[in-house]
Amino acid sequence: MFTLMSIDGGVCAPNGFFADGKSVGLKPDNQKDLAFIYSDTLCSVKAIFTTNKFQAAPILHFKKHSVQKTNFVLINSKNANAMTGEKGIEDIEQILESACNRFKDIQNPVMSSTGVIGVPLPKEKIIKGLESFELEKKDGNSAATAIMTTDSYEKQIAFEVKLESGESFKIGAMAKGAGMINPAMATMLCFITTDAAIPDDEMEKVLKISAEVTFNAISVDGDTSTNDTVMLLANKKSGVYDKEAFSHALERVMHELALKIVSDGEGATKCVAFKITGAVNDEEAAIAAKALTNSLLVKTALYGEDPNWGRVASTIGASGITCDPSTLTITFGDVTVYNKGEILFDEEMENKAAKVMKKDAFSIHCDIGLGNGSFTAYGCDLGYEYVKINADYRT
Amino acid sequence: MFTLMSIDGGVCAPNGFFADGKSVGLKPDNQKDLAFIYSDTLCSVKAIFTTNKFQAAPILHFKKHSVQKTNFVLINSKNANAMTGEKGIEDIEQILESACNRFKDIQNPVMSSTGVIGVPLPKEKIIKGLESFELEKKDGNSAATAIMTTDSYEKQIAFEVKLESGESFKIGAMAKGAGMINPAMATMLCFITTDAAIPDDEMEKVLKISAEVTFNAISVDGDTSTNDTVMLLANKKSGVYDKEAFSHALERVMHELALKIVSDGEGATKCVAFKITGAVNDEEAAIAAKALTNSLLVKTALYGEDPNWGRVASTIGASGITCDPSTLTITFGDVTVYNKGEILFDEEMENKAAKVMKKDAFSIHCDIGLGNGSFTAYGCDLGYEYVKINADYRT
Repeated sequence: MFTLMSIDGGVCAPNGFFADGKSVGLKPDNQKDLAFIYSDTLCSVKAIFTTNKFQAAPILHFKKHSVQKTNFVLINSKNANAMTGEKGIEDIEQILESACNRFKDIQNPVMSSTGVIGVPLPKEKIIKGLESFELEKKDGNSAATAIMTTDSYEKQIAFEVKLESGESFKIGAMAKGAGMINPAMATMLCFITTDAAIPDDEMEKVLKISAEVTFNAISVDGDTSTNDTVMLLANKKSGVYDKEAFSHALERVMHELALKIVSDGEGATKCVAFKITGAVNDEEAAIAAKALTNSLLVKTALYGEDPNWGRVASTIGASGITCDPSTLTITFGDVTVYNKGEILFDEEMENKAAKVMKKDAFSIHCDIGLGNGSFTAYGCDLGYEYVKINADYRT
Repeated sequence: MFTLMSIDGGVCAPNGFFADGKSVGLKPDNQKDLAFIYSDTLCSVKAIFTTNKFQAAPILHFKKHSVQKTNFVLINSKNANAMTGEKGIEDIEQILESACNRFKDIQNPVMSSTGVIGVPLPKEKIIKGLESFELEKKDGNSAATAIMTTDSYEKQIAFEVKLESGESFKIGAMAKGAGMINPAMATMLCFITTDAAIPDDEMEKVLKISAEVTFNAISVDGDTSTNDTVMLLANKKSGVYDKEAFSHALERVMHELALKIVSDGEGATKCVAFKITGAVNDEEAAIAAKALTNSLLVKTALYGEDPNWGRVASTIGASGITCDPSTLTITFGDVTVYNKGEILFDEEMENKAAKVMKKDAFSIHCDIGLGNGSFTAYGCDLGYEYVKINADYRT
């Protein structure tokens, strides 16, 4: 048994972690654009990266050095440092060398970037910007703000996890999302800090398991970025660990941040849970659920608050999973609109379903009616604002 | 050797074919919504249908009767007769029985539908509407108009194919597109008529080969409809056939209609050819080309006329094909913006590339630089109008 208590501080909440964010001139109008996370003792680190074949320079740098321990992560927004070749990696080496000169206590520093692809990193601005930081600052809010791109608000969370023994550990995290969000891999930047004494060999597994049902279950636009990273930093300062409690807390942290990312998807006005049950197995349920999050016709119907269940049915049929119209049931919120071959949809039903769709968050449940496979994916609507943001993104 | 001459008449152009379209009250404001194609002699017929698991009633009806010969195709718009179960098929049987009573000359009639999914077919309106038709009408334009949904203009084409011997045959076609258009299967309604004396056993193969590089190479929104159908009707009246000439003419007809569908994609302002060369094989080239047509970030950048080549690179990397940044070259029109690891993109280059993107039609060429595989897919931009059309489609 254990209890989770929501606490303030984001990535700074666990003992020994510090963070800050500043403006160094990458974004216009003095917006914050450079952040760090620092731990006053060395952390074990594990990360999940994008499956995009063109991984960005920070990911290549991390892998090149097979980083296992670090106590400093530097993160910039506005520039992805992707498609920048060897030069991109050299830029990181120089920036991190400057960081080591500036701050004597940091070891094996790593970097992470997000923003426009294919533009050389403005290295000098970042090196100069490092001068203005102080390591022992606990401003998780500024850090979470500095890593934003088209996000409309910063995304952070933290819990204190109390075990039955009275001992406790803390876990905190920040993330950025908004665009280039697609399931089937870690799909944004997320940094998780903890003072739990998790054994090194359990970190990667628990991170992957949690990612499958959280970050890998969301989609904003079906595009998979070159920079996606989910990083877990454990300094073990609490000396406390409980496998079940930690797994639960980690999944909760990642789930809440994943929902925040979808709710703040570019131009999104609603967050919708696409729940599939009754598929022949969980894999097929996941395929159908993720197909629904990515269908443009479903996403625009959500935006129009139009209970066009035919588009939901068509998307399931097109997803390639085992399915049959005579066993399928479709329910918007608590309104069943199609039941095993029978169209229940009349004007009254349409009004009821349209009412469900006016909510900021609701579920669409499709029971395939063939087996026990289930999966829930989270998506958002697509409206004019998405087009506006993405037709103008670089300007 | 053979020559193609563009002629008028659409599906009515080949000898012995007739067609018309009328308003029977399915669409508002007396818009045309019911069409037929008739041949005064029996035709061999072959069709390619959607891979969507929830195939619509007209497709199930066609397959149920294993139709090999027909001389009458009835097509309605506004209602897809999809997800309508056994009732949907019974409705078709009754409608076609009425057609046989009305017109004594028709044999094995078939039906095709397009429009909203999950609404029972207004059978009575269609049966009543049949009364107003005359079989021996040659109005391909009205037929092509009556099968439209959100298309902004009717799509038809016809050629006379002259062989070196002086003999000739004709081929005509009409299609509807606009939404739920996705590669990897026949993705819209298209009816092709010919008086060429093509042997029955060659019809299906030539239709499939042509579909791969035409209709299966286009995308408007990545959604695969329940009703997609490409149908070839051959009454063989000319007595003339030449395999090479016919294959060429059929592919030309399907290619031109495919481009019309993309150019008239819902809300589209541009038609873009995504040409992939240098992939390890043609299959991987097709995967990358089709991924580009479906990337929301690429589509919105096209709409914004923003030469954001990083999104093109990222989409190729995310598509899963074999690729490497150091062998990739990206060219917008005739402007190379990225060359094998070298970012060529400066302000002058950006202005040149932006100028290319102002055109109604242009190409984006990605040379993967690894092999001889190639494929060209055709896509369009995604702007505000797409959202408008699809958020409001049923109302």
